[in-house]
Amino acid sequence: MNKIRIGIVGYGNLGKSVELGIRQNEDMELVGVFTRRDPSSIKTVTPGVNVFTMDESKQMTEQIDVMVLCGGSMSDMPVQGPEFASLFNTVDGYDTHARIPEYFAAMDKNALESQKVCIIASGWDPGMFSINRLYAEAILPAGDTYTFWGKGISQGHSDALRRIKGVKDAKQYTIPKDQAINAVRRGEMPELSTREKHWRECFVVLEEGADKERIKQEIKTMPNYFADYDTEVHFITEEELIKDHPGLPHGGLVIHHGRTGLDEKHHHVIEYRLALDSNPDFTANVLVAFARAAYRLNREGVSGAKTVVDIAPAYLSSKSAEELRRSLI
Amino acid sequence: MNKIRIGIVGYGNLGKSVELGIRQNEDMELVGVFTRRDPSSIKTVTPGVNVFTMDESKQMTEQIDVMVLCGGSMSDMPVQGPEFASLFNTVDGYDTHARIPEYFAAMDKNALESQKVCIIASGWDPGMFSINRLYAEAILPAGDTYTFWGKGISQGHSDALRRIKGVKDAKQYTIPKDQAINAVRRGEMPELSTREKHWRECFVVLEEGADKERIKQEIKTMPNYFADYDTEVHFITEEELIKDHPGLPHGGLVIHHGRTGLDEKHHHVIEYRLALDSNPDFTANVLVAFARAAYRLNREGVSGAKTVVDIAPAYLSSKSAEELRRSLI
Repeated sequence: MNKIRIGIVGYGNLGKSVELGIRQNEDMELVGVFTRRDPSSIKTVTPGVNVFTMDESKQMTEQIDVMVLCGGSMSDMPVQGPEFASLFNTVDGYDTHARIPEYFAAMDKNALESQKVCIIASGWDPGMFSINRLYAEAILPAGDTYTFWGKGISQGHSDALRRIKGVKDAKQYTIPKDQAINAVRRGEMPELSTREKHWRECFVVLEEGADKERIKQEIKTMPNYFADYDTEVHFITEEELIKDHPGLPHGGLVIHHGRTGLDEKHHHVIEYRLALDSNPDFTANVLVAFARAAYRLNREGVSGAKTVVDIAPAYLSSKSAEELRRSLI
Repeated sequence: MNKIRIGIVGYGNLGKSVELGIRQNEDMELVGVFTRRDPSSIKTVTPGVNVFTMDESKQMTEQIDVMVLCGGSMSDMPVQGPEFASLFNTVDGYDTHARIPEYFAAMDKNALESQKVCIIASGWDPGMFSINRLYAEAILPAGDTYTFWGKGISQGHSDALRRIKGVKDAKQYTIPKDQAINAVRRGEMPELSTREKHWRECFVVLEEGADKERIKQEIKTMPNYFADYDTEVHFITEEELIKDHPGLPHGGLVIHHGRTGLDEKHHHVIEYRLALDSNPDFTANVLVAFARAAYRLNREGVSGAKTVVDIAPAYLSSKSAEELRRSLI
């Protein structure tokens, strides 16, 4: 069997998780990591991984079946994405929801020209949560969908805490409110404000001599990040932060409540829930499964940009159609 | 806009629910119900629905875009399915898991000849649960998937109770065991016996003078149905059965526990859960959403038999690809 040959573009948390994710799939192999840094400065998580410059990728179109793009959505992806779409099948986790149409158009144009398949906005939200919102709304059109995130670490909010003067380190958990989730489950179709859906819990390590009260106030009133939420702030030691709050756990749920029957008397709840020890590992594994889909679709002659909802689930599985019908349907 | 014109084949619980489900979708219209009974004997749930004989369908290939097959999997579907596949796009909820490959082959042959699309084994299990098993296994290949059913009414088990001499009426609930679900969530990857996964609760109305103890024994030792389970039997009055156990609620969950990272140190749980007031209504609504997919795929020139995992989620939605990217991804 020819293995699917994967390249990783960008080697941060996500790129490292993709490296590990590929090892869980026997039909795939990692050709190498592509970085903007000096390749000799990169130490990969597993031994024997080749590291190349971004430029070297241009000569490697025959050696790589799918590039998994692991740069940031803010500044890397809008530039890198279309460049790689001109040369490779790609998968990415572009997650700036508001700009997906624009990014899709740029990727689609180049992928159609290069006759490659580029799957964008994969991961879990956007990604698996998008898929679940779609299925739920299509099945129960008389209903409402709610998405909750957490309990998990928000990297953006943790960064915001760390930028405050006097804060040495910090982690922030986004936590859904149980009463909101239960109201949705009961079919009350609540109109939920930002404050009613989630609350935020901050674990903050202070610089020596920093002013606790001033920092707590600054956090709780920070616009966009914390002002619209109930926020709890805990001051802890550096040792406690390392010991009690390791890694990047996350998760969340999509709940759809819908009604059917005469007078809509029947209520139904569809719930899709994720509880993840590692946000980058799970995201990476979703990208890797969609890399398989990109490869297969392209071999069938398909080209252009796709989102996760454009991909039939069977393309993600390493099992054959016959095997799926026999063992999984 | 041309509406998608639907026909319903078979008018039991499921057919009636399809009739109601179509009304929730503005892009669809019901052309009529097809029955083996005398059409004049059928009273439809909503007024103004045309009722035809099965034979009349053969002259209506130009008037119907998709036939939703609502017969039984045991004896109706293996005959009806391939017959309709020769004339129409079809969707069905064929649910004899072990015979899906055989049924698929028969449907595929005829659908390829007639150049129609026939989506088989839709509904929730097989159906939405199959989709979720596939996604979970593809994303977290180092892991295990568990399916639990209930709490809900098993019609087959309720029928088995009613066949016992001295039983006037009965309903049987299949209920997953919490300790099994929690062991899966904790990542213990338990090997679960039939008895450890579910238990069965029976509500039985006796004929006058029937022997309680003999009937309880007969239930608890009934092979295939109850002998392998912990079974509780409650004797209640006919009034209580009607008042406290109405309708056909059901549900269940697919849980996948998987591991990632170096030494597989990160644990992840994916859960898909359904809580349904009406099993036939929900099943019908899944069939109706897949009817939209069958129609669209066929208009794109696709033909042959498909299962739910062969269908990209976007085909189920009444929203355009642009709208999905803008509002749902």
